[in-house]
Amino acid sequence: MKKIAILGFGVVGRGAYETIQARKNAGISVKKVLDVRVPTGYEDVVTTDYQSILSDPEIEIVAEAIGGLHPAYEFLTAAMKAKKSVVTANKHLVCTFFRELHTLAKENGVEFRYTPAVGGGIPWLYNLRRTVRLDEVTSLSGIMNGTTNYILDGMTHKGADFSSALSEAQRLGYAEADPTADIDGLDVRRKCAISASVAFGAVLTEDDVPTFGIRNILKIDTDRFTAMGYVCKLLAKAEKIGDKITAYVEPTLIPKASETAAIGSNFNMISLTAKRVGRLSFIGQGAGKDPTGMALAEDCLDIAEKSAVTETVLGNVEISHELTEHPYYVRTTEALDERVISHRLDGAYITIPLTVSKIHHIMKEIQSNDSAAFVAGITEE
Amino acid sequence: MKKIAILGFGVVGRGAYETIQARKNAGISVKKVLDVRVPTGYEDVVTTDYQSILSDPEIEIVAEAIGGLHPAYEFLTAAMKAKKSVVTANKHLVCTFFRELHTLAKENGVEFRYTPAVGGGIPWLYNLRRTVRLDEVTSLSGIMNGTTNYILDGMTHKGADFSSALSEAQRLGYAEADPTADIDGLDVRRKCAISASVAFGAVLTEDDVPTFGIRNILKIDTDRFTAMGYVCKLLAKAEKIGDKITAYVEPTLIPKASETAAIGSNFNMISLTAKRVGRLSFIGQGAGKDPTGMALAEDCLDIAEKSAVTETVLGNVEISHELTEHPYYVRTTEALDERVISHRLDGAYITIPLTVSKIHHIMKEIQSNDSAAFVAGITEE
Repeated sequence: MKKIAILGFGVVGRGAYETIQARKNAGISVKKVLDVRVPTGYEDVVTTDYQSILSDPEIEIVAEAIGGLHPAYEFLTAAMKAKKSVVTANKHLVCTFFRELHTLAKENGVEFRYTPAVGGGIPWLYNLRRTVRLDEVTSLSGIMNGTTNYILDGMTHKGADFSSALSEAQRLGYAEADPTADIDGLDVRRKCAISASVAFGAVLTEDDVPTFGIRNILKIDTDRFTAMGYVCKLLAKAEKIGDKITAYVEPTLIPKASETAAIGSNFNMISLTAKRVGRLSFIGQGAGKDPTGMALAEDCLDIAEKSAVTETVLGNVEISHELTEHPYYVRTTEALDERVISHRLDGAYITIPLTVSKIHHIMKEIQSNDSAAFVAGITEE
Repeated sequence: MKKIAILGFGVVGRGAYETIQARKNAGISVKKVLDVRVPTGYEDVVTTDYQSILSDPEIEIVAEAIGGLHPAYEFLTAAMKAKKSVVTANKHLVCTFFRELHTLAKENGVEFRYTPAVGGGIPWLYNLRRTVRLDEVTSLSGIMNGTTNYILDGMTHKGADFSSALSEAQRLGYAEADPTADIDGLDVRRKCAISASVAFGAVLTEDDVPTFGIRNILKIDTDRFTAMGYVCKLLAKAEKIGDKITAYVEPTLIPKASETAAIGSNFNMISLTAKRVGRLSFIGQGAGKDPTGMALAEDCLDIAEKSAVTETVLGNVEISHELTEHPYYVRTTEALDERVISHRLDGAYITIPLTVSKIHHIMKEIQSNDSAAFVAGITEE
């Protein structure tokens, strides 16, 4: 029976704790939980003293569910240096210190796993790592944020406008009081960078992922997409072409009969395409106490069971956002350069196929005068 | 570097061989391939003598891709007794000798894995086993046969009738010359029994899974389903209620906006629902040389890497087909018992909710007079 410590007794930490407590014979047990205060009834297990965890030789795995960069970073690097394996649900931390944390784990001969950091309860990163052992992933794409999927689904299928769909998501606990990270695509951008890094054996930071969010989407947009036979989803995409990689996040119009269009409510769907296995997709709950806590506990158990999966390779690759192109929908009160217009709609445009670099260049100019402008890619997948 | 032997150099065996050959540093290598003849250019690796594999102490894992019950059964049991771990893509074998093969593996301290036996290239069974370690699976369902999905998709979306859709599937290599196992649901029945056995820690045989196939489906049926807002899919389902299990295979009408309805062509989609993680779905290629060969190679590598996942529990559970009920569509020239009719259609009926036992009892009687009768369950999921 391997002993673990959980850092943070919030939603995800409690989910992991309860998962492990419910299966006494699974091979792992929680020896300590770190939190800033000790809840009544948990005096035996919860401590406020991280040093007591670090110096406990029985604790072999530290599972972090605090969130934020600090002190999570200091706690996890100290754990690795104390020869403890580390598991985390913290996408911000993983994305920011990807190379450093992998390198430190290797130097100390310990494991570093972070399946719940992307896709919550979906074993996406675990299966991605399992796939790259024997196959070559050429692209990935997906709905990696449940909040924005819930909002877009409400606007498309329930006649809601953006603000009422957002309020409903907040009421249900899917969206934060400050929804910026979700609706501006910053959460997805980190998840995309992490996924692309694992898929392609590279290190992408969030700055490597040009991102458009859904803050400016209006009911007139979603109604128009429905009339055109499309559904709008906020998609993360990454692709390897030759020895170069592109990765980006954008609202995307996809045909309404496609699998991705059918993903409703706050569900996530993430797909990989690899040379041998073809397209593999994973659908599930991308957030929440039990799914994410469960995924954190599963990573701990994998380490306890010595499930190898594979070491993440940290190569250097060239990132380029001029590898692929597709048309865009642009709603703006500004005039668009005639040379990029394919069709004119009422108050909006469909462009000719453009690279990610090009559309970001165009939108930067447009949004300096029209901050309410909305842009979405269009694909036939 | 762990050495493996592949039994059978047909489609799947070649897929596994090429997968492993392409990744020389992945941790496994193919020392021998068994086949009835040695293809030119493969004299170094292909042998016709199984004894030379059995007696080779360097070979730690035997991967079977022969198909059929015999001699696959004799080969694999001999391998286990020689203390070699065993991997197979053979659903017929796994389903027929589920308890015996698991028991023999345990007795000999070796591994027995069969991820490619259900879902081909989809890591469904692997993830199912990973999930049951810490969570309680309450149900599973899915499209587990690409041939029938291709046929139903063609009838629904391309205006094909049954025989032209079947011919097209045969032309593309998705369907066998004798399509009985696919269209009568026998292939899915085995996959359902294996999946339910792993999910619920039980041993279900194919006889435990009441099955309706799609042999009798007509264009008038699929046209009517389209008009009703439904799509027909051949679904495997299993559910645990209290301490009892039900498992069955039937053509099923599902709302056309559902995720399952969006699965086109020859793709498979398999889902589990568990108490903590909720609903998790996996979509991919359920057959074919590269996806299935890849899955066979992945199982070998998991064993080589000592990835534990978990031992399959072989408990005893009560199987009952009276645990759940839902309405059925029944097209027949026979008269249906008035008491089970909810709506009358032209030449067909919608029944009141019926148990699986009840509808099989009814259809047995009807099909003794009307061998062309067609039945499909109706669900709102």
